[in-house]
Amino acid sequence: MSNIFSEIKDDNLQKILSFIVEVDKIKNIMRRTLLIDGSRRENDAEHSWHLAIMAMLLTEYADDKNFTLDKVLKMVIVHDLVEIYAGDTFAFDVKGNLEKEDKEKQAADKLFGQLPSNQGKQLRKLWEEFDEAKTPEARYAAALDRLQPFIHNLCTEGHTWVLGKVTKEQVYKRSGLAMEVLPALKPWMEEQINDAIKKGWISE
Amino acid sequence: MSNIFSEIKDDNLQKILSFIVEVDKIKNIMRRTLLIDGSRRENDAEHSWHLAIMAMLLTEYADDKNFTLDKVLKMVIVHDLVEIYAGDTFAFDVKGNLEKEDKEKQAADKLFGQLPSNQGKQLRKLWEEFDEAKTPEARYAAALDRLQPFIHNLCTEGHTWVLGKVTKEQVYKRSGLAMEVLPALKPWMEEQINDAIKKGWISE
Repeated sequence: MSNIFSEIKDDNLQKILSFIVEVDKIKNIMRRTLLIDGSRRENDAEHSWHLAIMAMLLTEYADDKNFTLDKVLKMVIVHDLVEIYAGDTFAFDVKGNLEKEDKEKQAADKLFGQLPSNQGKQLRKLWEEFDEAKTPEARYAAALDRLQPFIHNLCTEGHTWVLGKVTKEQVYKRSGLAMEVLPALKPWMEEQINDAIKKGWISE
Repeated sequence: MSNIFSEIKDDNLQKILSFIVEVDKIKNIMRRTLLIDGSRRENDAEHSWHLAIMAMLLTEYADDKNFTLDKVLKMVIVHDLVEIYAGDTFAFDVKGNLEKEDKEKQAADKLFGQLPSNQGKQLRKLWEEFDEAKTPEARYAAALDRLQPFIHNLCTEGHTWVLGKVTKEQVYKRSGLAMEVLPALKPWMEEQINDAIKKGWISE
């Protein structure tokens, strides 16, 4: 199986096709978030797809619309690729998030190094830009990355909030960017957090 | 759960968020194709994500490069959405594919009708354009939609070819568009088909 591309003469094409096979592994990288029907945990490929369609639908609600959707879509598609080697770090795992940066940098070297140099650099740049969440594209993409599990939690009895024994402060820290970038959602998100506290999904 | 958005005043925003919840169902729409590690069937969300990253990486190999990647990405993200209601039709199910068109049109009415009119129209148009596979964007997107399961089959002992008791002619019919749109892949694909015949995965 690993050498099904060995007879392709174009070296770059061979690398790209091998990469396309390699990244299939992201379909087995499981997040803590449940599907909205609560049936099982979500994987990174599904999550990334979901962010892409959200990106298409919510552009007009972004506070700063000075971005190209094109780049946002690319960003959300690649934003979790490094987890193929680094694994998913639970959003509310404090210790795990301290070690995350180093682990993901090593994973990025290993993963993007498999591509032809130009494309490897392009994907790595998208991932780094996403991670810094500073440009309008990256802020919007990162906001969606916060909003999506927020919605999933509301639909699954606060699943990862309960799992992480999460406080109001932690939820605000995690979801604050979504409220900032998508101001039309802020009052609703605040209300939902208050509701989740009443239900015991989030502690005061 | 269904009314978590009921207190959002902006009617369009409420529709969009409800749609974002509704399309989570695509993560349970199972294709016949196996993951590359053979562990389980792939779902439509994962498949659509895979096409998106392939689209980013293979542009320079398209025969007609007169397209915007932006539109291709949108297309592959939405191309299977109607299967939420219509279900996945097995590529090699002759009878199923005769009924597919009507079923998917009804599903499209039901699904895209849930969005604000502008966005519903936009998504429907992308889906229809993909389905016709005539514009450069749609041909490229549809070629990837053929190439991806082709690669998965090579990695999983011809899984869906064996399942469908598929002939060489059927594989050429199904994969021909990928060979046409990505000519650099044609000799390799032909060779792989010959190999698969020798292995008994495809009948002559």
